[in-house]
Amino acid sequence: MKAATLSEAGVSREILVIGSGFAAQQLVKSLRKLDAEQPIRLITADSGDEYNKPDLSHVVSRGCTAAAMTRLSGSDFAEQQRIALVPHCPVLGIDPARRIVMTGQGEFAYGQLVLATGASAARPDLPGSEQLVTLNSQQEYAAAEGSIQQARRIMVLGAGLIGCELAMDMASDGREVTLVDLADSPLGSLLPATLTQPLQQALRCQGVSLQFGTGIARVDAQPGDGWRVTLTDGRTSEQDLVIAAIGLKPNLALAQAAGLAVERGIRVDDLLCTSDPHIFALGDCVQWRGQLLPFLQPIVLGANALAKTLLGTPTALTLPPMLVKVKTPLYPLQLAGRTQGEDLAWQCRWNRQGMVAEAHGADGELCGFVVGGDQMSAAFPLLRQLPR
Amino acid sequence: MKAATLSEAGVSREILVIGSGFAAQQLVKSLRKLDAEQPIRLITADSGDEYNKPDLSHVVSRGCTAAAMTRLSGSDFAEQQRIALVPHCPVLGIDPARRIVMTGQGEFAYGQLVLATGASAARPDLPGSEQLVTLNSQQEYAAAEGSIQQARRIMVLGAGLIGCELAMDMASDGREVTLVDLADSPLGSLLPATLTQPLQQALRCQGVSLQFGTGIARVDAQPGDGWRVTLTDGRTSEQDLVIAAIGLKPNLALAQAAGLAVERGIRVDDLLCTSDPHIFALGDCVQWRGQLLPFLQPIVLGANALAKTLLGTPTALTLPPMLVKVKTPLYPLQLAGRTQGEDLAWQCRWNRQGMVAEAHGADGELCGFVVGGDQMSAAFPLLRQLPR
Repeated sequence: MKAATLSEAGVSREILVIGSGFAAQQLVKSLRKLDAEQPIRLITADSGDEYNKPDLSHVVSRGCTAAAMTRLSGSDFAEQQRIALVPHCPVLGIDPARRIVMTGQGEFAYGQLVLATGASAARPDLPGSEQLVTLNSQQEYAAAEGSIQQARRIMVLGAGLIGCELAMDMASDGREVTLVDLADSPLGSLLPATLTQPLQQALRCQGVSLQFGTGIARVDAQPGDGWRVTLTDGRTSEQDLVIAAIGLKPNLALAQAAGLAVERGIRVDDLLCTSDPHIFALGDCVQWRGQLLPFLQPIVLGANALAKTLLGTPTALTLPPMLVKVKTPLYPLQLAGRTQGEDLAWQCRWNRQGMVAEAHGADGELCGFVVGGDQMSAAFPLLRQLPR
Repeated sequence: MKAATLSEAGVSREILVIGSGFAAQQLVKSLRKLDAEQPIRLITADSGDEYNKPDLSHVVSRGCTAAAMTRLSGSDFAEQQRIALVPHCPVLGIDPARRIVMTGQGEFAYGQLVLATGASAARPDLPGSEQLVTLNSQQEYAAAEGSIQQARRIMVLGAGLIGCELAMDMASDGREVTLVDLADSPLGSLLPATLTQPLQQALRCQGVSLQFGTGIARVDAQPGDGWRVTLTDGRTSEQDLVIAAIGLKPNLALAQAAGLAVERGIRVDDLLCTSDPHIFALGDCVQWRGQLLPFLQPIVLGANALAKTLLGTPTALTLPPMLVKVKTPLYPLQLAGRTQGEDLAWQCRWNRQGMVAEAHGADGELCGFVVGGDQMSAAFPLLRQLPR
């Protein structure tokens, strides 16, 4: 295999992508749309199967098995897109000087390298943490599938977007769900507490027990089945399953070992280029303009821009205001722009069915909004009013 | 004393008031303003001292002793107003047929009788309930004064208006305060949960631990000092003082024994007349148009109307929209009109400093409002817009 990928002078034209998540696949599609012939290789530690990651928040209510999530097998994807797929092949290291990627299956030369290494579900640092289930990938769901399908009492740690979606989904399937968060309200990183009140009521209405202002202190195996969870406020409960949904940690090890600049994520410029001019990065592993962007839309737009850049037309990523959707069916939310900050002045109208809240900056201009409940149709007109 | 108060034919001109709280005193003042000569007698189980009841929510931060709350002694009040005061004299019964009030100090005839028997702080029905302190009168404060001044760890049961005021006041004095309520938000009988968010933040900011969605299951004496409190969710804590602020129960016993119509309160018509044409009622003991009105303004207006009625000019009580004030200094609230109901559509603007929220009914008309934080000045213009 070495021979096949290293050109004789050691100069490869190949675009090599590490990873096979949404970012990697989106980039392949964008490249292929622009250039039918460009050699592309995708190296991934897993199968390379394509699935729709947001569905992970709804597998319980939909009764969807992990296997059934696969939309396209890795080999079919590779065939469709005419790329070389190297599945089940963990990358061991990158040599930027030689433009070589080292794997257990040998070395691969690259012309340009794209890191799409994604992010891993964060785990809290507590005794028994290894017992916590995470649901950040089809593989993680597959690993926990049996216990998820059987669990009656489920505790979800973390009331962020994913935690809220999971809690409502599992409660709607009749599970006994407890949602725990150290903050005093859900979606703390997205919204002021006031605007989360209807969601809280909807979660309670769905039967979710909200335990805010507290965390998990420890998780212990029960003599029989299940887990004994002790909260930081001293309360204990028995659970069949404990899910951690406390956020994502970009996978930085490869980039770090290769000497690339990393902070919270792999630092990239507007061309999505890392500190090495032949190495780029895309997706959940990236830190762009100081931010992590663990959402689909920046990946789609990033893949479009990066494909052009890699094919010879340097194209900066620009992100228009992005709609973030909280898919909690009893009371869904959509938000965009700046929705956090002590300086914001809010204008809100709401009734029992829904709400529209506009955030205005010091200059009085609209700078963000939140719509909820039956007011989803108000989102797009507001999105268009946001400054670009 | 009997001889002095019973006219020879058994027909008294005297207006006899039972009680000496704000309602009784306000009525005396209103009567005296209109008629310098009308014989008035006030029979009360306590001293008849005048104090400002709302101050009870702020005694800790102000370092005010129970004795220092007295504005005017009962005897000075009686002298000023030229009334006959019968202090420390519990009323044993009323004979409406004979128009006689029976007491340990003999019988008193009346021309017209006014019940201003007030309301008592409700106590939860739980083991150890008798250990709970209530703060609904100067006497209750006097009884608990020592333990209140010494208590470091204070639990307040009930996050209504009084509970919130007490919790913030005591926390502002450096006490370790826990505020417990079965509801999921404070001021549950006044406001939708959404609008209580800034107050919740202010309470937390002041150091109050908010424990909502739970109640007290039992209170047990500790071997040393203080109390062991068990919450309904199983948590336990040690407290030096537990205060019940779960509401008021109108004092109905006298009225009931006299055969007057009572429901939640003593039923009165718009003239504040009970089911007996010679017996009236005023204040916290009253049920008027189906509602209890445990606020000062209805008493002031009721006293004015009732004074005219008693003096021969039947005058119906009408209540204009009333401003309810929640005196929580870090984030005060004022509200009026209808601020609860699933049919309301709200319009709200807020920033970090304050908020103005308007409630509109199905017809689109303003029917209530809430102002908070630094927006107190918005209350009066809104009050004037409310339908009468």
